Amino acid sequence: MKVGRVVLAMDIGGTKLGAAVVTESGDVLGEMLRPTNPSWQPLEIIEVLFALAEEAVCRADTEWRALAALGVSFGGPVDFPAGITVRCHHLPGWEGVALRDVLAERSGLPAIMDNDANAACLGEVAFGAARGCRDVLYVTVSTGIGAGLVLDGRPYRGAGSMAGELGHTLVVPDGPSCSCGRRGCLEAVASGPAIARAGGEALEAGEDSVLRCIPRAELTAEHIAEAAGSDPLAARIMETAGEYLGLAIAGAVNLLNPQIVVIGGGVSLAGDALLRPLREAVRRYGAAEALCDLAIVVGQLGRRGGLLGAAALALERSSCE
Amino acid sequence: MKVGRVVLAMDIGGTKLGAAVVTESGDVLGEMLRPTNPSWQPLEIIEVLFALAEEAVCRADTEWRALAALGVSFGGPVDFPAGITVRCHHLPGWEGVALRDVLAERSGLPAIMDNDANAACLGEVAFGAARGCRDVLYVTVSTGIGAGLVLDGRPYRGAGSMAGELGHTLVVPDGPSCSCGRRGCLEAVASGPAIARAGGEALEAGEDSVLRCIPRAELTAEHIAEAAGSDPLAARIMETAGEYLGLAIAGAVNLLNPQIVVIGGGVSLAGDALLRPLREAVRRYGAAEALCDLAIVVGQLGRRGGLLGAAALALERSSCE
Repeated sequence: MKVGRVVLAMDIGGTKLGAAVVTESGDVLGEMLRPTNPSWQPLEIIEVLFALAEEAVCRADTEWRALAALGVSFGGPVDFPAGITVRCHHLPGWEGVALRDVLAERSGLPAIMDNDANAACLGEVAFGAARGCRDVLYVTVSTGIGAGLVLDGRPYRGAGSMAGELGHTLVVPDGPSCSCGRRGCLEAVASGPAIARAGGEALEAGEDSVLRCIPRAELTAEHIAEAAGSDPLAARIMETAGEYLGLAIAGAVNLLNPQIVVIGGGVSLAGDALLRPLREAVRRYGAAEALCDLAIVVGQLGRRGGLLGAAALALERSSCE
Repeated sequence: MKVGRVVLAMDIGGTKLGAAVVTESGDVLGEMLRPTNPSWQPLEIIEVLFALAEEAVCRADTEWRALAALGVSFGGPVDFPAGITVRCHHLPGWEGVALRDVLAERSGLPAIMDNDANAACLGEVAFGAARGCRDVLYVTVSTGIGAGLVLDGRPYRGAGSMAGELGHTLVVPDGPSCSCGRRGCLEAVASGPAIARAGGEALEAGEDSVLRCIPRAELTAEHIAEAAGSDPLAARIMETAGEYLGLAIAGAVNLLNPQIVVIGGGVSLAGDALLRPLREAVRRYGAAEALCDLAIVVGQLGRRGGLLGAAALALERSSCE
């Protein structure tokens, strides 16, 4: 078997940490995951990541010096050219950490770091639903909503590395409050927490649903997404979220005329219950010119999106060596 | 004086045709303009363009063989890689014309053609308000509303050359009818005709304004834009248009995090009467991360945007030789 380049991938998410050894065709030779402790500081997380990485390298039956580069998917905004984290959405202490260079020095590998949406977009282009595509809009629908872009075959990050803030596009004038302090953002009506809240409110209002079996405090968007295939209430909630997503995505499609839109993140597990209303809304609100030949699909990398995205970053990095 | 490369620029607009000889620093050595006859077919327009070009070359005191390339700004969508016009918004017969190759053959020059918004964006980057900028959103507000993009220092055109359809982004749910057949598009509430219509309706409703001096049938957005500095009604109409533009631009800024937004087209002549409400709306609806260090300015090329954009295209083309 020709393996080609092999890279190390690290994923720093709000709920889990991961490390993996990945080949340039996307095969995962060794992988280690563990839950994040929300009280951990950056230095503790770096220790855990290297322990996971050592074990992943061992399981991959390879050696550290065989690795071509290190890629890191980070769950929050980063200053890409500087390799510095801006903050983490779910973990403390990540303001202004020069993570890329710390990891590069400790690993002895050329390192590259990007936010999780950009990394997942690259991962879908390298190994998943957007393989071979040059103009790609990736939208992750999870605790937050963000976008990653590959344009003209290259990752696009914006002047301040802040491209992809699709979640804070207005979709409901004077709508529900958003975490950003404004009202009616896409994230306030179609993110995981917004979907869970809509479910809780419908149940409180007395609607019948299989979701009643789930203790209220534990009800998540994933539950609703999974139930949407058979439960009318869950289906209706996903339909509303899909329509709002489609409205915002239509604006992005008009502007960028991508060939494919890939939907990822936990909420995308709803599949057609989300995709059907989303696609309909994109066709309703998109300009005819920009819709021609447009595919809208669910991502293929699923929960491995972070690690495979990090691997795609590492492969990009090692191509520059 | 070191002139460097000299190129030929052609501009095919809805109301005028132009040709110019331009240096690589943006100096116009010879320029010819004339109104378009709306009944002319493509072959007649090509004849006129070459007559204008011959005269421009003559006025520039240069020779045809000194020209490095030919750039064409076309007032409608084009299939960029193929060099074929898709249609013209204001002139008949332009469906599927292989204009780039026709002009290349006849001129003997390497030729490049793009739509007017993309060309004007490149022009502002090469010679105007966005000089030296790598991530640029250009928005033209005229008979229609369209956008041009330069991302990571390169023109971005989209998978089917249809990027930039900002005018058909929904901004008013169930709002006024748009030329595209849908309702509430940005173009239906903030383009030149929409602004002129708002003015006409306000005058019909009896509002006091200097615009009463203009025969109703002749009232244009340019009149309203020019009056907005001193006339309250004109100012209010530009304010509404600026707010809608700002709302749509905020979505684009969130997605792309450009360093500069350049507003061009006839309506941009309103200056601050348009820019102030537009900037305020971008700040109100844009994500904080994407707004950091963002400049929003009026274009510097004005009515020469088409020709200087075509020249910028030609310079891009001749760099590839």
